[in-house]
Amino acid sequence: MSRFLNSKYTELEVYTPGEQPRDMKYIKLNTNESPYPPSPAVLAAVNADQAELLRLYSDPECKNLKNSIAKLYGVNPENIYLSNGSDDILNFAFMAFTEGGKAAFPEISYGFYKVFAQLYGIECRKIPLREDFSIDPEDYCGLGCFTVIANPNAPTGRTISLEDIEKILQTNPDNVVVIDEAYVDFSGQSCYPLIKKYKNLLVVQTFSKSRSMAGARLGFAFADEELISDLKRIKFSTNPYNVNRLTLAAGEAAIRENDYYMENCRRIMATRDRTTAELEKLGFTVIPSKANFIFAKSGRIGGQELYEELKKRGILIRHFSDPKISDFNRITIGTDDEMTILVNTIKNILEA
Amino acid sequence: MSRFLNSKYTELEVYTPGEQPRDMKYIKLNTNESPYPPSPAVLAAVNADQAELLRLYSDPECKNLKNSIAKLYGVNPENIYLSNGSDDILNFAFMAFTEGGKAAFPEISYGFYKVFAQLYGIECRKIPLREDFSIDPEDYCGLGCFTVIANPNAPTGRTISLEDIEKILQTNPDNVVVIDEAYVDFSGQSCYPLIKKYKNLLVVQTFSKSRSMAGARLGFAFADEELISDLKRIKFSTNPYNVNRLTLAAGEAAIRENDYYMENCRRIMATRDRTTAELEKLGFTVIPSKANFIFAKSGRIGGQELYEELKKRGILIRHFSDPKISDFNRITIGTDDEMTILVNTIKNILEA
Repeated sequence: MSRFLNSKYTELEVYTPGEQPRDMKYIKLNTNESPYPPSPAVLAAVNADQAELLRLYSDPECKNLKNSIAKLYGVNPENIYLSNGSDDILNFAFMAFTEGGKAAFPEISYGFYKVFAQLYGIECRKIPLREDFSIDPEDYCGLGCFTVIANPNAPTGRTISLEDIEKILQTNPDNVVVIDEAYVDFSGQSCYPLIKKYKNLLVVQTFSKSRSMAGARLGFAFADEELISDLKRIKFSTNPYNVNRLTLAAGEAAIRENDYYMENCRRIMATRDRTTAELEKLGFTVIPSKANFIFAKSGRIGGQELYEELKKRGILIRHFSDPKISDFNRITIGTDDEMTILVNTIKNILEA
Repeated sequence: MSRFLNSKYTELEVYTPGEQPRDMKYIKLNTNESPYPPSPAVLAAVNADQAELLRLYSDPECKNLKNSIAKLYGVNPENIYLSNGSDDILNFAFMAFTEGGKAAFPEISYGFYKVFAQLYGIECRKIPLREDFSIDPEDYCGLGCFTVIANPNAPTGRTISLEDIEKILQTNPDNVVVIDEAYVDFSGQSCYPLIKKYKNLLVVQTFSKSRSMAGARLGFAFADEELISDLKRIKFSTNPYNVNRLTLAAGEAAIRENDYYMENCRRIMATRDRTTAELEKLGFTVIPSKANFIFAKSGRIGGQELYEELKKRGILIRHFSDPKISDFNRITIGTDDEMTILVNTIKNILEA
């Protein structure tokens, strides 16, 4: 840190991304990436012709991709916002919609929410989960402040219903409610159709998980036209060309082959359910997940220890040191083969 | 605008990027892009193998590209910061280094500086240029606040010397001075070696202009290790994976073929000097430029009118409505052929 840094940022506890060690080749089950490659049209769209166009700025309105997404989801292009990953959208939402200086979100959730809040000097209302790690929707009714709920939640994988989301929207009419649907394609139900009814709803999705494009950085959001125009105001005051040309081209190709990705989601869900059953056979408690990861604890080995033993054996999973969840690990669903190796390796560790 | 938007942003005057009309094919001399494509290695690096890796997050540390740039410029990797375009770096600098709430920059300069200032509620000290559009370095000595100077300046193309930059750094020891070198490769002299001597210097460069990668979004900065760590603190509190995989791959390829780009710069400089001479023959006043654009006014036709007449004829240049410079136009240097067409078209307009 330099002595020039604004004093309001000197205490910031920044976000810690999942580790990306390079000392050996790991089975990577730690950052919720897809085990399947992007679709054939994406591989074809990333080519020398596109590279030649890099000399020209990308379209700051992202018009073509916005139109494609709007068509796929049956909304108007004016209801879509595109950005450099969904973190970018969440960041802008924390900037734009926190008049009053408060933000509410589940105590156990995506670790970035509290970082954004700290960055902008916003007071956090961290709302505890129930014993079973589920969200009690009643806790969010009538809160009267900016609210963010990941649905499915991370790292738990649990969901709340559309009815509950409607109740939260109805009882917080003067505040924006963000539903972070990064994992929704893995069997959660998207609430984006509610944007037609609720002007305070912002639904955030990403190409990083179900669409195998974590490395391309592409997030999108659904909302009433007015909320979208607020986000664009922040974008055009920070980085108007924030989505690059190659990502736009890849994103358009991905939307054309949506079936490919939805089939991958079904495969991941099947692998998830099989892995859950096998870990339960080994005595694990596995929280019922609607995402591309599971959150599990063994009665026989601690969370930190299991993480370390697996890492030694070439498998990365994610452990969080927060004592409320430190018995657990978040395990991304890989291919069937990868999960078989995981289960067998855990067996070996437990039997050692 | 929605009623949910934070009141501090409701009056924001956002940045207006150069127009990108789609009604016909234009000779685009309005956004300072390079007329030359990226180098062969970049065209080769953007391929299906890279696309396949998109399922994995990009390296948040941008390690490989950082090392390549460090090697090319003869600095340590710890002195390099990489981001999603140089606007991203400027944005972070305005966030990070404006303790005291003031920012100084030339009154006529890159239009984004005042947008960042407004976004963060920072008071602007807009310092007038001299009559000839040059910066008087004395004006910036001992200012005692965060300072940004584009060198070469835009849209004027004029530069200040390294000695003057040193004086500014020495007389503002408690504040960060940003030298925005977006256009430095077109004959300006970079001040990046001064980072070894001045802990308050942040030098910002971009792949958008001299390296033909405007559409890839890649900016980089040189500074003392401590300033770099401050920028990283902001990055890891907003968007840790802000540079995507394909851009990192393209950037590494571009650095390997640096000679190709420096040769393009020489061609652009030769075209610039020829175009300047020809416009002067037509009676234009052309500010001596060290960038990939010229700033010129005709005694015979107004700036707005020339812009409009050229647009009708398929040539886009940039006009700014600020009355201090509204007689002028900023004209990006294209290929030799494009500039011949420009000069001939202007001749026709003047003779009509």
